[in-house]
Amino acid sequence: MKNQSTPIINQYIGLVETDPFENSMEEIENLAQLIVGDLDLNVVKKLSRLFYPNGVSLIYVLSESHLAIHTWPELGIIHIDLVICTPRTQAEFEKALKSAVTNYTTHSVTVKAVNFDKVSDS
Amino acid sequence: MKNQSTPIINQYIGLVETDPFENSMEEIENLAQLIVGDLDLNVVKKLSRLFYPNGVSLIYVLSESHLAIHTWPELGIIHIDLVICTPRTQAEFEKALKSAVTNYTTHSVTVKAVNFDKVSDS
Repeated sequence: MKNQSTPIINQYIGLVETDPFENSMEEIENLAQLIVGDLDLNVVKKLSRLFYPNGVSLIYVLSESHLAIHTWPELGIIHIDLVICTPRTQAEFEKALKSAVTNYTTHSVTVKAVNFDKVSDS
Repeated sequence: MKNQSTPIINQYIGLVETDPFENSMEEIENLAQLIVGDLDLNVVKKLSRLFYPNGVSLIYVLSESHLAIHTWPELGIIHIDLVICTPRTQAEFEKALKSAVTNYTTHSVTVKAVNFDKVSDS
């Protein structure tokens, strides 16, 4: 049985492979907002960096931990990292991510989950 | 053989279990600086949030992607998430992390790596 004094830490990591896309912060902010909205998360701070010639890093501190997105536009790669201490499932994350990238010509969406079971079991 | 046009994306996630510790941003910034220094990473932006009654979120945007640390001081939990597009190994991350938490009364340090092999193979 789960010890109620231990934190829930869910981490989901997505990799989206697409056609090459524009190096646009606005597009990635839109993607992040769609994920945050779909999963009903709360953004408390934002941080972004546009790299030259290519690439965006966009990070939201959430009241539930963080969402970080990194892109390699010329290669068509989007990396999404979500750490949350609320009970969202991998399926919910994957659904939100797939829904958020419908504007891209997507080749694949791969999602992995990281769990430290000892935290829940200790 | 690896396609040179694909990005390296290494992600290492650490969970440190300790005695309960002080809710101190300064201590966590010190921990982050030790990891960044040990792994020779470059910080381009910082973002932090002190939660009440307990908890710190500290995120660095790196020129190599990001380092995010979240804490549950009252439970003695530190979660460290490193995404980098440079060739640091899991062993190097684990060594840097263990070295950075020597000021804590540590019960365990667990490290996991996330790889999307298809990125390297595509």
